Amino acid sequence: MGKLLRSFWQPVALADSVVPGKARPLRVMGEDLTLYRGDSGKPFLVGGLCPHRRTMLANGWVQGDEIRCMYHGWKFNGAGACTERPAERTAGNAGVKIVSYPVHEYAGLIFAYMGEGEAPEFELPRKSVFERPGALQFARLETWPCNWLQQVENSMDAVHVSFVHHWGMVGSFGAVVAATVPELSYEETDAGIRQTAVRSAGSTRVSDWTFPNNNHISHPTLELDDPWVDVGVWMTPVDDENTMRFLIYSIPASTPEADARIRDYFDTYSEYNPADHHDDLFVNGNLPDDRLVQLTSAQDYVAAVGQGTIVDRTKEVLGRSDMGIALLRRLYWREMDAIEKGVPGKRWKRLSADAHMPKQVNEIAG
Amino acid sequence: MGKLLRSFWQPVALADSVVPGKARPLRVMGEDLTLYRGDSGKPFLVGGLCPHRRTMLANGWVQGDEIRCMYHGWKFNGAGACTERPAERTAGNAGVKIVSYPVHEYAGLIFAYMGEGEAPEFELPRKSVFERPGALQFARLETWPCNWLQQVENSMDAVHVSFVHHWGMVGSFGAVVAATVPELSYEETDAGIRQTAVRSAGSTRVSDWTFPNNNHISHPTLELDDPWVDVGVWMTPVDDENTMRFLIYSIPASTPEADARIRDYFDTYSEYNPADHHDDLFVNGNLPDDRLVQLTSAQDYVAAVGQGTIVDRTKEVLGRSDMGIALLRRLYWREMDAIEKGVPGKRWKRLSADAHMPKQVNEIAG
Amino acid sequence: MGKLLRSFWQPVALADSVVPGKARPLRVMGEDLTLYRGDSGKPFLVGGLCPHRRTMLANGWVQGDEIRCMYHGWKFNGAGACTERPAERTAGNAGVKIVSYPVHEYAGLIFAYMGEGEAPEFELPRKSVFERPGALQFARLETWPCNWLQQVENSMDAVHVSFVHHWGMVGSFGAVVAATVPELSYEETDAGIRQTAVRSAGSTRVSDWTFPNNNHISHPTLELDDPWVDVGVWMTPVDDENTMRFLIYSIPASTPEADARIRDYFDTYSEYNPADHHDDLFVNGNLPDDRLVQLTSAQDYVAAVGQGTIVDRTKEVLGRSDMGIALLRRLYWREMDAIEKGVPGKRWKRLSADAHMPKQVNEIAG
Repeated sequence: MGKLLRSFWQPVALADSVVPGKARPLRVMGEDLTLYRGDSGKPFLVGGLCPHRRTMLANGWVQGDEIRCMYHGWKFNGAGACTERPAERTAGNAGVKIVSYPVHEYAGLIFAYMGEGEAPEFELPRKSVFERPGALQFARLETWPCNWLQQVENSMDAVHVSFVHHWGMVGSFGAVVAATVPELSYEETDAGIRQTAVRSAGSTRVSDWTFPNNNHISHPTLELDDPWVDVGVWMTPVDDENTMRFLIYSIPASTPEADARIRDYFDTYSEYNPADHHDDLFVNGNLPDDRLVQLTSAQDYVAAVGQGTIVDRTKEVLGRSDMGIALLRRLYWREMDAIEKGVPGKRWKRLSADAHMPKQVNEIAG
Repeated sequence: MGKLLRSFWQPVALADSVVPGKARPLRVMGEDLTLYRGDSGKPFLVGGLCPHRRTMLANGWVQGDEIRCMYHGWKFNGAGACTERPAERTAGNAGVKIVSYPVHEYAGLIFAYMGEGEAPEFELPRKSVFERPGALQFARLETWPCNWLQQVENSMDAVHVSFVHHWGMVGSFGAVVAATVPELSYEETDAGIRQTAVRSAGSTRVSDWTFPNNNHISHPTLELDDPWVDVGVWMTPVDDENTMRFLIYSIPASTPEADARIRDYFDTYSEYNPADHHDDLFVNGNLPDDRLVQLTSAQDYVAAVGQGTIVDRTKEVLGRSDMGIALLRRLYWREMDAIEKGVPGKRWKRLSADAHMPKQVNEIAG
Repeated sequence: MGKLLRSFWQPVALADSVVPGKARPLRVMGEDLTLYRGDSGKPFLVGGLCPHRRTMLANGWVQGDEIRCMYHGWKFNGAGACTERPAERTAGNAGVKIVSYPVHEYAGLIFAYMGEGEAPEFELPRKSVFERPGALQFARLETWPCNWLQQVENSMDAVHVSFVHHWGMVGSFGAVVAATVPELSYEETDAGIRQTAVRSAGSTRVSDWTFPNNNHISHPTLELDDPWVDVGVWMTPVDDENTMRFLIYSIPASTPEADARIRDYFDTYSEYNPADHHDDLFVNGNLPDDRLVQLTSAQDYVAAVGQGTIVDRTKEVLGRSDMGIALLRRLYWREMDAIEKGVPGKRWKRLSADAHMPKQVNEIAG
């Protein structure tokens, strides 16, 4: 599965988590790396340890677009090649190198291609809605102490909304989705899976999932007549037991007052990680005050982390309503089989148009 | 040993740790469970995870005497049978079930029978002293980070009182038990082991231990002329490395002033777990202010947890004074042998009368 | 390697970490021990657990020059022999004993000999500079969460000073050592290794390393015209993943004002362990305010702990400038080979005179 995930562009950091001239350690898919921005502002992703005496490279000095180890001053460029070993005098640096992965900034996130061979064009992760001129756009990161797949499966499971997002408190999301159980349908697309959940005549939810670990949904923003927010969420493994959950929220600009209100809201509430409130959620049953971003995350967190670090799927009792999860697993197996057999997998490609996502009315609640 | 412990009623929670309509997770003997009280007030002990997608059931909704999972609304009754799977429509729930154990409330504790077959009558754990009309009775729980057997063996070892309860500070318990070493005798009874420790003509201590992990002792309450307190203590494994220590304190009512004083004392001091003060005890050598309940626990804690998480008994150097421990181990082996051979073990039964426990005078200290 | 380290006197505790009549637990080279001072003031190092029921002996009572277990009163003398078992009455104590190691106090440290056979004379660890009459002398301890060898190798690597001690901030140490890369030479001596690093005509640094894990260096104290401080540093393993770093600072007395200033400085700043500030150093990049003792430790800490708990040396890329480390490893292998073959190793002996350590001038910075 690692090989499969690595053959796609994956978000690995918030763009503003590293400023020009600075470095930080970063663990992605079980690999310890160094993320730095050159003085030029360009980001680079290279190995975590200096190959010489193996201390953390992130503690080193960024100089131009290169990074110098703090232990004995070995210097590496963004392609991972060693360009200086001061104490080795004239010995040269031939063949001394560290790993390096291509990176690409998009919508407030830094994506990396950690697979073999040439990186594919940065196209599959794009959505028109994340490129709307003038839109209000916010990127967030949460890190959860459980396997990434539990979180992906949660997003391919439209039934959970009727329960999980009515748990503890009904927030902005639950308010438009009735607690009734939906009729489900799933369809494989060029990019992934289109999921449709019909709860009533006025309540059809569509979400547009992109292979292998991204979902795109839409739900209300703050006030009833605010434009709805498009949410893109990626689950990138830190390792098998921890997951970075990257979220982009994009809202079309409307009135200056609404825009200001929404900006202010994200300034105030978006720094939240439910893992920092684990006992509040699991032991004390206290939910966050915020009913939009924080509540929604907290509710999903209780469901996914409540499964434990890595859920034992051999003991599941699945039903017909888990058909989305079943499809998801079939696609993973099919693509992993292709890798194993050395034949080409499906050429996933960006949809020619973003999926249509109708707004729902909670006819029962309303 | 697990099989043996499970073939007896064991306390698993304080009765007031779960209120009607609520659930909590509970780990007992290495098994993750859900304890909940129905709206009727009846307690139930069922499996820890929903069998569907395996999230924690304790986060669910208690409805009537049943519990509904927060993830997709599967519902279970107190016998563990699935009674609803909303998104499965008309599919029925035949055969979907989780584990369930009988529970019984007694003296402020919730007991469970986690063994095979029909639960035995709730009789062996009972004592007349815990059923005295009008008595002042208090239930407590401490959780210690060490194996349960270290704690049981400590209670079958009357010599330790002369040292451990004179350690750091002599409290209400040490005050009546001289630091002299006692003459010991042990006798197997219908219910367990009667332990007698004679320190002098006026100091004979008797304790009445019930198979497999309960002790009953008696010692002074607060003032010299207060009635003595009967203490029942059970060591229930959370798992091999952690133990729940349930304590019942029962004092016959005397004068209204004394009763009020004693109630007030337990209100103030009984919420104490020495594990929360581990470094104070082990590193700083600070003992609790309270000289009765807290000091006695803290002293035993230092002895038992000082042995490490699971003591390596292959390296012990036992002496004649460890005859109580030797008897205890023989009984365990005998009963485990019976289980292994598939023959009936001893039919332990409640003593026809509570043991006589004379009060001691510390003639040396006094 | 354990056998080799144990065949030398090793510092195991600060002398003032245990007062007369008290005991403390102590873990050294993976072994749990009890360090106590008898009422006479004499220190003793014996086993960590009472052999009877195996509770921690350090919680016991020190009586005279013996220690009594808090559980059942077994008593042991400083040689580890059991001298009393109160509850065993007349049974005697023949053959009951715990481990015991010879100890020796020197320069504010307690050294122990934990090897086989007779302890060697306490001679190799001595230096004239630590025995100067009237000198200001201070002993410190830091405990780092990494293997001891990473720290020893750091001290046999003179190049690191040009980088590590110019990292974040240039303190008193970095100020006299230019960031230029030195010419190195290493020479095996009777006692260990003499390391010489020449940066320029006025900058020759010599350090005098004593087998198997002690270094001796010299650097400025507080003001430019204060006498320089001799620093002895020993890396004693707690276990494979943690190391006690014992440091002696010795400064010849000069003027009463300077002496008072230096004493005051060490009173204020010497209680520092970079491990207590790990995130400040690694995550926030905050260095300690103090530019001498604390900064120097913090910088080395980032280099050594940045290598991880135990660095994977199979993946190193060493260069010619690592010749000190190469020599160090050859000496270890040679001496371990001797142990394995059962032939005598080198008879390391104290140098007839302390090494001459010239003061440097940072001609470039100055």
